[in-house]
Amino acid sequence: MMEKFFYPRSVAIIGASQKEGKIGFSLVKNLKEKFRGKIYPINPNADSILGLKVYPSVLEVEDEIDLCIIAVKSNIVPNVLEECGKKGVKNVVIISAGFSEAGEEGKVLEREIKKIAERYRIRIVGPNTIGVFNPEIGLDATFFLDQDVNKPGEGNVSFFSQSGTVAVLAMESFSESNIGISKLISYGNACDINESDIIQYFLKDEKTKVIAGFIEGIRDGKKFLEAVRNARKPIILLKGGKTKSGSRAVSSHTSSLAGDYFVFSNVLRQFKVREAKTWEELVDSVKIFSFMEKVNGDRVCVVTNGGGFGVLASDEAEKNELKLPEPSEELKKDLEKILPPFASLKNPIDIIADATPERYKQVFEVLEKHDEYDVYLVVVLTQTPMINEGIVEAILSFKKPKVVCMSGKKSIEMIKELEKRKVPVFHSPERAVKAIKILLS
Amino acid sequence: MMEKFFYPRSVAIIGASQKEGKIGFSLVKNLKEKFRGKIYPINPNADSILGLKVYPSVLEVEDEIDLCIIAVKSNIVPNVLEECGKKGVKNVVIISAGFSEAGEEGKVLEREIKKIAERYRIRIVGPNTIGVFNPEIGLDATFFLDQDVNKPGEGNVSFFSQSGTVAVLAMESFSESNIGISKLISYGNACDINESDIIQYFLKDEKTKVIAGFIEGIRDGKKFLEAVRNARKPIILLKGGKTKSGSRAVSSHTSSLAGDYFVFSNVLRQFKVREAKTWEELVDSVKIFSFMEKVNGDRVCVVTNGGGFGVLASDEAEKNELKLPEPSEELKKDLEKILPPFASLKNPIDIIADATPERYKQVFEVLEKHDEYDVYLVVVLTQTPMINEGIVEAILSFKKPKVVCMSGKKSIEMIKELEKRKVPVFHSPERAVKAIKILLS
Repeated sequence: MMEKFFYPRSVAIIGASQKEGKIGFSLVKNLKEKFRGKIYPINPNADSILGLKVYPSVLEVEDEIDLCIIAVKSNIVPNVLEECGKKGVKNVVIISAGFSEAGEEGKVLEREIKKIAERYRIRIVGPNTIGVFNPEIGLDATFFLDQDVNKPGEGNVSFFSQSGTVAVLAMESFSESNIGISKLISYGNACDINESDIIQYFLKDEKTKVIAGFIEGIRDGKKFLEAVRNARKPIILLKGGKTKSGSRAVSSHTSSLAGDYFVFSNVLRQFKVREAKTWEELVDSVKIFSFMEKVNGDRVCVVTNGGGFGVLASDEAEKNELKLPEPSEELKKDLEKILPPFASLKNPIDIIADATPERYKQVFEVLEKHDEYDVYLVVVLTQTPMINEGIVEAILSFKKPKVVCMSGKKSIEMIKELEKRKVPVFHSPERAVKAIKILLS
Repeated sequence: MMEKFFYPRSVAIIGASQKEGKIGFSLVKNLKEKFRGKIYPINPNADSILGLKVYPSVLEVEDEIDLCIIAVKSNIVPNVLEECGKKGVKNVVIISAGFSEAGEEGKVLEREIKKIAERYRIRIVGPNTIGVFNPEIGLDATFFLDQDVNKPGEGNVSFFSQSGTVAVLAMESFSESNIGISKLISYGNACDINESDIIQYFLKDEKTKVIAGFIEGIRDGKKFLEAVRNARKPIILLKGGKTKSGSRAVSSHTSSLAGDYFVFSNVLRQFKVREAKTWEELVDSVKIFSFMEKVNGDRVCVVTNGGGFGVLASDEAEKNELKLPEPSEELKKDLEKILPPFASLKNPIDIIADATPERYKQVFEVLEKHDEYDVYLVVVLTQTPMINEGIVEAILSFKKPKVVCMSGKKSIEMIKELEKRKVPVFHSPERAVKAIKILLS
C-alpha cells in the first residue's frame, strides 16, 4: 500500500512554482536534480519550470501519475484532490498546512479532503508534512534545499515523524553522524496514513534494517500494537508530549492527543520497542543499530591511551550495569610482553599516552587471540603527537565488535573514514558506553 | 603562591629538544610562538632551538627564572630539580611521568623529589601533567601543538584536572563550544599542589568567573572543604572514580584514592558546588555560567518556529521542574496582532515554520514590553528558507536573558556570531533546557 509513496516512477507537483524561495519551486528543484523517474509540475499559470514542461492540471498529463505532491493553499486542496481522483492518482502527499492543526475551519477542511480521498480510494500522507525522501531512487520530495540542509546518503535506517521540523532535523543529525537513510517520511496530521501503517511498511521493507521515529500521539492503539507486536527489526521511538506542558504543545502542533505517557512507555517496553529519552539518545541508538550487528555476550573491554577517559568510561559502564571483567592471567602475560611497564593491564587496559597506532594494533592482535570479551570500547586520545592516520587502519584491522571514542581537531577525517566502514564513533566516553548498553539490551 | 605558575615573566624548559615530535620540542615551540615573556631552553647537548639560545643548565641562566618546566626522564628529575633549587627557582611544573602512578620504584622517586622541593621551598605542579595554559599572556606551557589541538581563546573560565588527557580534551571541547579560558592546569599526581590550592587561587583570581574541574580523588579533605566553603563563584566538578570499576581505573591512572563517591557527592551539594554527571553536562554547565549572568526568577518562555522541538523542549522543561506559564491575556492579544492565525500563543509560543527573522524580532519586542518571563529559550529551525543571517541580529536585539537552540548546515556561522556575543547556543532542545535548569538552580 505504501510502496508507491517511496518508489514512484512518476511524480506530479501540484502548486509547482517558478519563483525561487517558494515551496513549489524547491520541490521541483529537488526532484529535478536527483529523481530518476518522470516529473510533472502542475500550475495553470506557468509554461516551464527549470526546463520542465508545466501542465495546467493533472488531468492534462497523459502518463500515469504514481505519486502526487500537493503544495497549494489549504482552501484549494479539495479541488486539486478531486482532480487527482478523476485522474486515477492513488497516492498523495499533502504538504499544505492549515488543516486540523489550525482550528475549527481547518478541521472542516480536513474532513472534506478525507471524504474525497475515500471516494476515490486515494491514500494520503499529511496534510501538514514536509514530504517523503528515498535517496535510493533520488526521491527528494521535500521542500528543503541541499544548500540549506545536510541530507544523509543511502543507508539502512528508515525514519518517520509526525513533525516536519523533527524530520528535517533528523536529516541533519543523521548526516552529521554519517548515518545513511533508506526512507524518511513526515506524516503531519495523519488524516489517513499514520505511524502504524508506516511501521508496518518499514518492517516488511527489505532495505530497512532499523526503524526510528518521533511520535506525538498514537492514532489507533490496536493497529499500533499489531504493528509492533512481532517486530524483528529494532524500533526506536522518541515520544513528544510526555508531560502536561509537552502535551499542551502537541495539541497546538499536530492536533494529536498525546495520550498517557506512562501507558505508552510500558507498552513499548512490553513489546521490546526501544524508547529514546532524548534527541541525542535517539541518534546514538539509531547509529549503533545501523552500524553494528547484535552482540551475544555482555563482557566489555575498554582499551585507552588516555587514563582520564578510561575512568569516565568505567564509571559509566558500571552505572549501566555492564561488565568490565579483568583480563585472564594468560591475556595479561601476553599484553605485558608488548606494553611498556607503566601500562595498566586491568580493564580498562591503559596503553599510555605515548601509544602509537602500531601499539594499538599489537594489543588488538593479542585481544583477538584470547577472545575474552564480547564487545570492545576503543578510546583514542587523538591529541597526542603519537597518533596519526594509521590509527584508522589499526582499528579496522581489529575484527571484533567495537565502538570508538575520539574527538577533536585531528579526529575529523579519522571519524569519517571509520564510519564509512561502519565503525561507530562517539565523542564522549559516556555516550560511547551508553551506545554499547543499548546494543546489548 | 600560584601566581607565578600562571603569570611568569620568564620560563625555562629543562629537557628542551631540537627534535620535532619530542615533548621538549613542542614545549619550546608553543612558548616561542605565543609567550610574551623570556624563554630559556635547557639542554646540555644543544646550542639553539627554533632560534632560541639553549643553556646547558638553569645554573647558567643569568636572569631570574619564574617558572621551570621539567620534561626529562623521571630518573633525571631529582638532579635537575636540585639545580632548580640552587638557582632559586620556586615554581616547577614536572611534565615527566614514571612516578607514583608507575609502581614502587616511581613512588620512591616521587618521595625523593618531594624532599628536594621541601628543602629548597620549591612548589611543584605534577609530576605526570601536561602543563599549564594562560592565553592572556600567551603562556602555552603544554606539549600539545596547535596543529593537533583546537585551543580555546581568552575567556573567563578556569579549568583544572588531575588527568592530562582530560585537560587537553577540555581544551578541544571548550574551543568547539566557543568557551574562552582564563587558566587551565593539569596537576597529575599532585605531589605538592593539589585541587584545593588551585580552587583557592581561582577563587581569588579576578580573571576567573567560572571554575571547573575533573577530580579523581581529594588529597586533603579538610583543605578542600575550606576552599569551597564560601565560594562566590560557580564551581562545577566532574568526578572520576564514582564506581568500583572507575575507582580501579583511577588507581592505575594517577594513583589517587577515589574515595567514597556518596560522601563526596553529598559534600558538594552541601557546599553548593555543582556536580556534572557527564562530560557533556560539564561543558554545557561551564558554557551557561561563562556566557550568562545569574537569573532571578524561574519563569521560562519558549519561542519556536518548529513545533516538534517546542514539544521536546516542553517535556524536558517539566521533567526538570521548570515553569512554563502561559502568557497573560494582554500579552496574547499583542502577539495575536503580529502573528498569523495558526500560531500558538500558549507557551511554547509557536510562531510557525514560515517565520522570518523579522517576525522573531517583532515577537521579541512584544515579549520585552510585557516582561512576563525571567529567561527565554529561542528555538530556531534554521533549515527553512525563511531563516537567513538576519536571525542573528534579531536575537541580539532581544535584551532579555536567553538561550538559543539551533543546529545544522546553515547554523554554523550563526552560532559563531551569537556565541561571540555571549549568547549560548545548544544543538538539541533537551540540552538547552538542561542548561537553563543549571543556570536557575
